[in-house]
Amino acid sequence: MMNVSDCAVTMVPSLKNRALNYGDGCFSTMLSRKGHIQLLDRHTKRLVNDAKKLKIINSKVSFSIDDLKNLIKTFALESYNAAKQSTETKSVETEWQIVKLLIARGDSERGYAPSMDSAPVFIPSAKDYYPVADHTVSLGLAHMKLAEQSILSGVKHLNRLEQVMAKIELADHEGVDDLILTNAKGLVIELTSSNVFYCIDGIWHTPCVEKSGVNGVMRQYILDYMQRNQIICNVSDMHVSALLSAQTAFSCNAVTQLVPVSHVSIGNESTCYDIGPSQCLAQKISDEIAKEKS
Amino acid sequence: MMNVSDCAVTMVPSLKNRALNYGDGCFSTMLSRKGHIQLLDRHTKRLVNDAKKLKIINSKVSFSIDDLKNLIKTFALESYNAAKQSTETKSVETEWQIVKLLIARGDSERGYAPSMDSAPVFIPSAKDYYPVADHTVSLGLAHMKLAEQSILSGVKHLNRLEQVMAKIELADHEGVDDLILTNAKGLVIELTSSNVFYCIDGIWHTPCVEKSGVNGVMRQYILDYMQRNQIICNVSDMHVSALLSAQTAFSCNAVTQLVPVSHVSIGNESTCYDIGPSQCLAQKISDEIAKEKS
Repeated sequence: MMNVSDCAVTMVPSLKNRALNYGDGCFSTMLSRKGHIQLLDRHTKRLVNDAKKLKIINSKVSFSIDDLKNLIKTFALESYNAAKQSTETKSVETEWQIVKLLIARGDSERGYAPSMDSAPVFIPSAKDYYPVADHTVSLGLAHMKLAEQSILSGVKHLNRLEQVMAKIELADHEGVDDLILTNAKGLVIELTSSNVFYCIDGIWHTPCVEKSGVNGVMRQYILDYMQRNQIICNVSDMHVSALLSAQTAFSCNAVTQLVPVSHVSIGNESTCYDIGPSQCLAQKISDEIAKEKS
Repeated sequence: MMNVSDCAVTMVPSLKNRALNYGDGCFSTMLSRKGHIQLLDRHTKRLVNDAKKLKIINSKVSFSIDDLKNLIKTFALESYNAAKQSTETKSVETEWQIVKLLIARGDSERGYAPSMDSAPVFIPSAKDYYPVADHTVSLGLAHMKLAEQSILSGVKHLNRLEQVMAKIELADHEGVDDLILTNAKGLVIELTSSNVFYCIDGIWHTPCVEKSGVNGVMRQYILDYMQRNQIICNVSDMHVSALLSAQTAFSCNAVTQLVPVSHVSIGNESTCYDIGPSQCLAQKISDEIAKEKS
């Protein structure tokens, strides 16, 4: 088995980097507190799963998950220490960083065909983060529809033009903070950069991500939390109109964690949500994550 | 209007480059002979069209097409001169280069949302090319289906994981050189890195690329050539089984130009093609392109 030390860790990607040329890679965006990554086990597991789905990890190329974890841990600690040392240049100090690890298939000559034995290239980066207290989001509906591609679905790969176009569209929607992305059939998939959960008559629902969408680390964590705590949650396809009959809803990703949705507008109809139940769940999950050892 | 000189031309993409992080950009791959780009007008027009579709060019950001042309021309000439000077290290000399221009939306902070006024980043690259005489290709059918996404369709953007996965799949297909890519309905779209034309009972056909696929520069050139020369060609959706009843077919892109298909295998059925008509058309078009002033 190849080791992480056999792979290039770089901050200066080459012209032949396949992430640059074809979006040929995957990534995870993690929240770090005082240099410790939240949900590190899940992030590394997800990175390895996604790299396998893209066949970046294959019969010739692999690396140890523990080495990957160490790489991220070391980088997060160094980034936090560097941020602390540079506090004099900042207006507000923060103990939080967003740490991202991008895994490119590596470098190759021209052409879509990859070399199956080229070593992956790891590109870590970090950025200060300032959490917003009592944050809520309001939702509109994107005109753009997500395509269905089952071989890429669920994977947090680097082909993110749909999300980029959705964010551009968001600028044209007045009075909403984020957009619901649906597929061509009008089924809810996700938001522009987070997953979504909603509750109708005491039953939670979250969209299936088997044909489109990202199977987010926080989505997975919440589903496990709900199962452990006997909270019923259906993972199923539902038409976007279902959101109008929900009583509470939240968006989630690994950085913002759970953010209650204040209201949703779809066409001429809109619904105001009770943010209480989402806030309560957000607090419980946030407390549980904070107790985890990274 | 922004000028090309206001945009960064770089060979060292930064960590914040949006092509690297999200595949947020487009590109064109061009054939250069003795430092002169073939079909340069079409390549620059395509790059500008694609950049507009992705809203890299928008109300705040634009650049002159002539400046873009000059940038490519200068780069192609310099690359050819550099290649000539380094001939001593090569076993075979070549007058051909493949020149690629990648246009990234530019750099940005973390997140899918782009800044609409950030200057695009141009990344040119070049590589020696050795044309293969009397080249033909045999085709199989990819299991992988192309997704339908009308806002990205036709565009040669950097989200190319479907093509990468198709090239990986190709390695498992014995005895064929390339794969036919279809959509979920089984309609022919393109090959892994080229468009396809086929002739049934004297009528040429090429797939529509309105919902999936790339509207290649050579595809456009051939369609115009056929129109100028009263050769009937239908641009339409056709089920992949239609290829079994064709008499001749060719693949095409800006680098390989027209390559006759020798035979096609779909499931248990296969058809051998008459390569004569495709070879004849390939020669005529190659001669016409060679006469164009770049």
